[in-house]
Amino acid sequence: MNISLAQLSTFGRDVFRQAGLSETDAATATDTLLAADSWGIHTHGLKNLGGYVKRLNGGGINPLGQARVAAEGPAWARVDGDASLGMIGSTFAMRQAIQKASATGIGFAGLCNSCHFGAAGCYATLAADEGMIGIAMCNDTPTVTIPGALGPVLGSNPIAYAVPAGEQLVLLDIATSTVAGGKVFSAAALGKSIPEGWLVDEQGRPTTDPSTFPAKATLTPMAAHKGYGLALLIEILSGVLTGAAMAGSVLSYAYDDPSKPTNHGAAFVAIQIEAMMELAEFEKRMQSLIDEIKNAPKATGVQQILIPGEREQKYKAKALKNGLNLPDDVWAKLVEVSASTGIDLPVN
Amino acid sequence: MNISLAQLSTFGRDVFRQAGLSETDAATATDTLLAADSWGIHTHGLKNLGGYVKRLNGGGINPLGQARVAAEGPAWARVDGDASLGMIGSTFAMRQAIQKASATGIGFAGLCNSCHFGAAGCYATLAADEGMIGIAMCNDTPTVTIPGALGPVLGSNPIAYAVPAGEQLVLLDIATSTVAGGKVFSAAALGKSIPEGWLVDEQGRPTTDPSTFPAKATLTPMAAHKGYGLALLIEILSGVLTGAAMAGSVLSYAYDDPSKPTNHGAAFVAIQIEAMMELAEFEKRMQSLIDEIKNAPKATGVQQILIPGEREQKYKAKALKNGLNLPDDVWAKLVEVSASTGIDLPVN
Repeated sequence: MNISLAQLSTFGRDVFRQAGLSETDAATATDTLLAADSWGIHTHGLKNLGGYVKRLNGGGINPLGQARVAAEGPAWARVDGDASLGMIGSTFAMRQAIQKASATGIGFAGLCNSCHFGAAGCYATLAADEGMIGIAMCNDTPTVTIPGALGPVLGSNPIAYAVPAGEQLVLLDIATSTVAGGKVFSAAALGKSIPEGWLVDEQGRPTTDPSTFPAKATLTPMAAHKGYGLALLIEILSGVLTGAAMAGSVLSYAYDDPSKPTNHGAAFVAIQIEAMMELAEFEKRMQSLIDEIKNAPKATGVQQILIPGEREQKYKAKALKNGLNLPDDVWAKLVEVSASTGIDLPVN
Repeated sequence: MNISLAQLSTFGRDVFRQAGLSETDAATATDTLLAADSWGIHTHGLKNLGGYVKRLNGGGINPLGQARVAAEGPAWARVDGDASLGMIGSTFAMRQAIQKASATGIGFAGLCNSCHFGAAGCYATLAADEGMIGIAMCNDTPTVTIPGALGPVLGSNPIAYAVPAGEQLVLLDIATSTVAGGKVFSAAALGKSIPEGWLVDEQGRPTTDPSTFPAKATLTPMAAHKGYGLALLIEILSGVLTGAAMAGSVLSYAYDDPSKPTNHGAAFVAIQIEAMMELAEFEKRMQSLIDEIKNAPKATGVQQILIPGEREQKYKAKALKNGLNLPDDVWAKLVEVSASTGIDLPVN
């Protein structure tokens, strides 16, 4: 069953409006979540609407929160999210970074007092849309262990970047855990087992049972100490430097008391390409690099080598044309939201 | 046999002086390489002196090259390394990023026309020494494969960061391959086999024979598509945006015609903490995060959880006190340099 992006957008906006958001903020939040869905990143899209609504209704997210610049300088801004939805504060903060980069060449915006921001790639892409290189990251409640430890120590602290390359958008959006927790939740909801290496149990032994996460199992860091080290940098830029909650003090948007702000932190960087090199020249060089990568000798059975973001862009083109065929676990979540809010789900 | 850092410094300076570097540049280059050795990162320290000298003598590195700002704006600089030693252009470029960050809060410096820069952490640390967060990265001649490809496509494109935290320095320095090529060379020189997962052969099958690298074997990217994606970002910031050589056009400082410049690119970021938060407050927050991590429940048999850079700082403290006991393969390389230059090696 395919549903158009426009229909899903209407549903998302209506749900956020009912939860008290302004029309503008409801649109921003919905567009951000739908961007993730349109790329096929359904773990970080509208699927989480119910969790956000629960916290909006509980008071932990302020539907009328106004993200604002708390302090700033020529190339940086510290943004207070005012306990608004993660998508609102993050969009505002990335726009600050973009504005600073327009003036100075590179802009940094830190965000505190925010919440779960969804897919990092949505914010990185805002910069790429302006012809800039965008980088976005955030901290989260601990779900990932680190070398030598037992149990969760850091969040799955994701990082994304987006780079304009003519027709193409180079886009990477990754958790610094072996996989994002959302993939484990999806497997659990669909009754599937997961590959060894994603999760460890309370004794630190590998487990393939996704239903034990997060209560009794912990994600592993990607590439062991390397993922741990990168997650720590993201924690420092998103949490330490912004004044947000850090590590164990960040609440889970989904599991913790919905009346409390989660105080997630995030960090956004924009680099103005045009300041350093003509955009046409940059895009020509990007194309040359992309061609070199795509023309590399292929492993047996491989039809083509993918550039980061290529799969997502193809998925989006198809979604724009045919609408989205949402996975069962995502649809089930939307049915729940529809039931609890009384807002009809679009059905084709 | 322990040799003091001062003795090794004298040897390095004498070798670089003989190769035509100014006294200042010989000191900068030696200090940079010795910093890596002092942390125990011997794969990226004085061990590579012979390779640099060969290229200095061949003309591919200009001993009198003068790194200079080719273009700049309020928060960025594009540095032309003038085919000088990688350590010279990179030190100069990171100092530009630091200077920009002092004025605007964040500084970005891109470097072209450079060479192999050694350990990325050496440059990141220059920023931390000034109370800033430092990030350093570079591209390199392809030695790493990517998902779907056969053979090398990208360099091991390392990234490092350094963050001041009171007494401590948080420091991560990683290749975006599963391991840096230098670890494979060391294993080969010492006649050891390597763990499965580091290298693949010409058919893409895992191999544990380090002697086949780089001619007939290729490094794997860390965490598969995630390492590939991060290596590509580093290639974009270091290569595409700086005007340096990209991917397959970057020459190997060790294997390619020593009369040709390698045209490596690199990128440096400095973030001025004090602009955004009082340094004392930042360091207090860092300490709180470090305490939380170190006090996490430990896996069976683990005495302590390490913070990135902790091992390196302990190694350095010992090196400052007792001197360095260089690994056999490093010592053998220094003996070669001593023989070819006629400059005596210090012997304790």
